[in-house]
Amino acid sequence: MRLGLVRGARPLLGTVLRPRAAVSAAPARCQALVYAQHGEPARVLHLKDLERAELGHSGVHVKMLAAPINPADINMIQGTYALLPDLPAVGGNEGIGQVVEVGSHVTSLKPGDWVIPADAELGTWRTDAVFSEETLVKLPRDIPLLCAATLSVNPCTAYRMLADFETLGPGDSIIQNAANSGVGQAVIQIAAALGIKTINVIRDRPNLREVVDRLTSLGADYVITEEMLRKPEMKDLFKKVPKPRLALNCVGGKSATEMLRHIQQKGTMVTYGGMAKQPLTVPVSAFIFKDVKLRGFWMTQWKKDQTPNKDRLTGMILTLCDLIHKGQLTAPACTQVPLKDYRIALEASMKPFVSSKQVLTM
Amino acid sequence: MRLGLVRGARPLLGTVLRPRAAVSAAPARCQALVYAQHGEPARVLHLKDLERAELGHSGVHVKMLAAPINPADINMIQGTYALLPDLPAVGGNEGIGQVVEVGSHVTSLKPGDWVIPADAELGTWRTDAVFSEETLVKLPRDIPLLCAATLSVNPCTAYRMLADFETLGPGDSIIQNAANSGVGQAVIQIAAALGIKTINVIRDRPNLREVVDRLTSLGADYVITEEMLRKPEMKDLFKKVPKPRLALNCVGGKSATEMLRHIQQKGTMVTYGGMAKQPLTVPVSAFIFKDVKLRGFWMTQWKKDQTPNKDRLTGMILTLCDLIHKGQLTAPACTQVPLKDYRIALEASMKPFVSSKQVLTM
Repeated sequence: MRLGLVRGARPLLGTVLRPRAAVSAAPARCQALVYAQHGEPARVLHLKDLERAELGHSGVHVKMLAAPINPADINMIQGTYALLPDLPAVGGNEGIGQVVEVGSHVTSLKPGDWVIPADAELGTWRTDAVFSEETLVKLPRDIPLLCAATLSVNPCTAYRMLADFETLGPGDSIIQNAANSGVGQAVIQIAAALGIKTINVIRDRPNLREVVDRLTSLGADYVITEEMLRKPEMKDLFKKVPKPRLALNCVGGKSATEMLRHIQQKGTMVTYGGMAKQPLTVPVSAFIFKDVKLRGFWMTQWKKDQTPNKDRLTGMILTLCDLIHKGQLTAPACTQVPLKDYRIALEASMKPFVSSKQVLTM
Repeated sequence: MRLGLVRGARPLLGTVLRPRAAVSAAPARCQALVYAQHGEPARVLHLKDLERAELGHSGVHVKMLAAPINPADINMIQGTYALLPDLPAVGGNEGIGQVVEVGSHVTSLKPGDWVIPADAELGTWRTDAVFSEETLVKLPRDIPLLCAATLSVNPCTAYRMLADFETLGPGDSIIQNAANSGVGQAVIQIAAALGIKTINVIRDRPNLREVVDRLTSLGADYVITEEMLRKPEMKDLFKKVPKPRLALNCVGGKSATEMLRHIQQKGTMVTYGGMAKQPLTVPVSAFIFKDVKLRGFWMTQWKKDQTPNKDRLTGMILTLCDLIHKGQLTAPACTQVPLKDYRIALEASMKPFVSSKQVLTM
């Protein structure tokens, strides 16, 4: 069972699945949200009392402080995600923890440090774990807890997509759908900090005005509905802002096709989600005569590709923390829910149009 | 009227559209296939007797020798292409000509030289024209006439797509549909010369065996039908050859989607045609989890992007001529038709499954 992702010769498990009765000594215990089979999260997840793995020479005992529920966590439990851990597994891939104790060979971390996962599959929905040193990234302790808990997936995704596909500078523009998502909000803030204009597409909804106002307060230049995206009035928008060189697509289907119509000649669309559960449909002419480039992005893979050198990851994290210090990057709206009430949090996280991110606190 | 594409301050027209009656002196004449409106080529194209433009200081008088009919020429006349000349215009974008006379400022060309267009829109379906020096590329005279006549579009497209999107080496593989097209045949030959394996997809047809044999004789490693592309037996193929890093798509629709399924993680599909007249449909997961890259290629744009420096174009032409010298690149099957019988050639060029390229000879 892989409850703490470990790299190296000797398996170092975050926790050991052994019934309490079989334990002869009295090893340290922890609580974790475990699933032994794929299915609906509220049904297959159970809060279990587990034995914590031994520290050893290279282990890092981490007390988890807070861990969000992300859509990918849900899909992973449902068994529909591209990355599935061996079962049984602890849920959750993101979160902030504090180092309690380190093994004698650990050099980069010390008790009291804040750490976040360097990779997916660590299993963050638990009170404690022993992780191996290389699976963790140290974080400055002077950023808000909820920023720290939600930093390693969405803001990192937003940052990389803005940095790695097109060379953008002040005055350039980008367009994105699902602009109210966690990534979407991070894109708005990071782009605003860089002087890049954002055209933000959201679904029409009962509290539209409220969402528009919130995204605008984060730094969004333009917020439009999916319906607006299809209207000829879009050309008026492009009298005020240059056509985007980059489109960020978390929806697929018609939304993606429509965004593509508005990007610049030789522009790029990066797909990182498929909320509409529909494929992208692209006219051949867009490739040949408009020379658009279609790419994809998956933060999990990017992090894997960095192994074993974490310099780029650490550098990005520090850049994002700098934006947080300056007040240019904030956490999304969060609802903190104690770990034991995980069913309430799971249910809330799966409701459509719920803008508040559910964060389990330990 | 832009009958010879000219770059520079002073318009230098390939031909001058002036009725014979209005001519006071006796300027040189030429014959050209002219269209004054868009429509079905056989209806709107007319063989006209025109006045040839004056040579001037920087003109190059070229006697055309042979010029093929390409699908893009047809679409341009129909008015459905992305690049449409001002009308009236002379048809044809490719061909081989011989220099008859050059203006006093012309330094790179001399009488007797073979030349091909450096760009689209020159209007090659004519007996003679005066072109400006920079619109022409010199060709070695020791390659077969039909190779020369068909070199600047299809083999160049094949070469660039193999060179510019993925770094391929001996033992790597590529997959392409419409493998029996002009570009497809050039891809097979250039790839074979580079030691790159080709998986070639063609439509099922009455003379399937014959086409398979011909493509194999050109160097095709595998030739399969569109139907085969969808079958589980494809996995047997990939026991013999690595999954392709590059897919070349001239069809669109289902054919493109199926090719995409077979390319390697992080591979690229380049679309350069849309014979099925259907858009590409791509599952979101291909972008996110397989990290495929979708691009487009248009030779016309590539050539425009080289202006005014023709070094890369000239270098590529010489490389291709080298392959021709070595017998590694041959012209597609061609049917030579005298210019005056252009209606027969047009009709043949628009029939499905006609593998022979129609080439007008002057």
